[in-house]
Amino acid sequence: MNCPIARCLDVIGERWTLLILRDMLLNPARRFQDFEREMPGLTPSVLSARLKELEAAGVVASELYLEHPPRLRYLLTEKGRELGPVLRALKVWGEKYPE
Amino acid sequence: MNCPIARCLDVIGERWTLLILRDMLLNPARRFQDFEREMPGLTPSVLSARLKELEAAGVVASELYLEHPPRLRYLLTEKGRELGPVLRALKVWGEKYPE
Repeated sequence: MNCPIARCLDVIGERWTLLILRDMLLNPARRFQDFEREMPGLTPSVLSARLKELEAAGVVASELYLEHPPRLRYLLTEKGRELGPVLRALKVWGEKYPE
Repeated sequence: MNCPIARCLDVIGERWTLLILRDMLLNPARRFQDFEREMPGLTPSVLSARLKELEAAGVVASELYLEHPPRLRYLLTEKGRELGPVLRALKVWGEKYPE
């Protein structure tokens, strides 16, 4: 569907993806275990898959912060940070209508 | 999930629902055939189901505008109009990143 609204939802529409992005908007750089600690129901395989999707979408970038053993941390790109207003608008509405 | 962002996506996350809401934010009152004309791929049964869901969520209200034969038109409630900033934020991002 060639609709900008639908395109944005393609990226943020999945539940865990949304929570990962929310966590990254609040924290500048995150390691795999930071996500695991913050989102107890999120399994490593689902977290890994979601991070790969977000990297493929250009919303998240990873960088090596430790060489031995190799360890990655995850950062929002400019494209990812620009999802901030979307998540804030969703939050404002969801908080106003909690039922 | 007790997350305001997820609650908002519960209401707007489905594709046709999003397009119906977008149409209603642009047009103050809509008849069934107005939606059908604007969204050619949308079948009457799906449209009917989506409108029922939106009414159940308190986002859309219907009123009789003709008694014989009975005809309804659909309006956004206050709760529905307040989804405007969400759709606008999704649109801004989707337009900026069209790939």
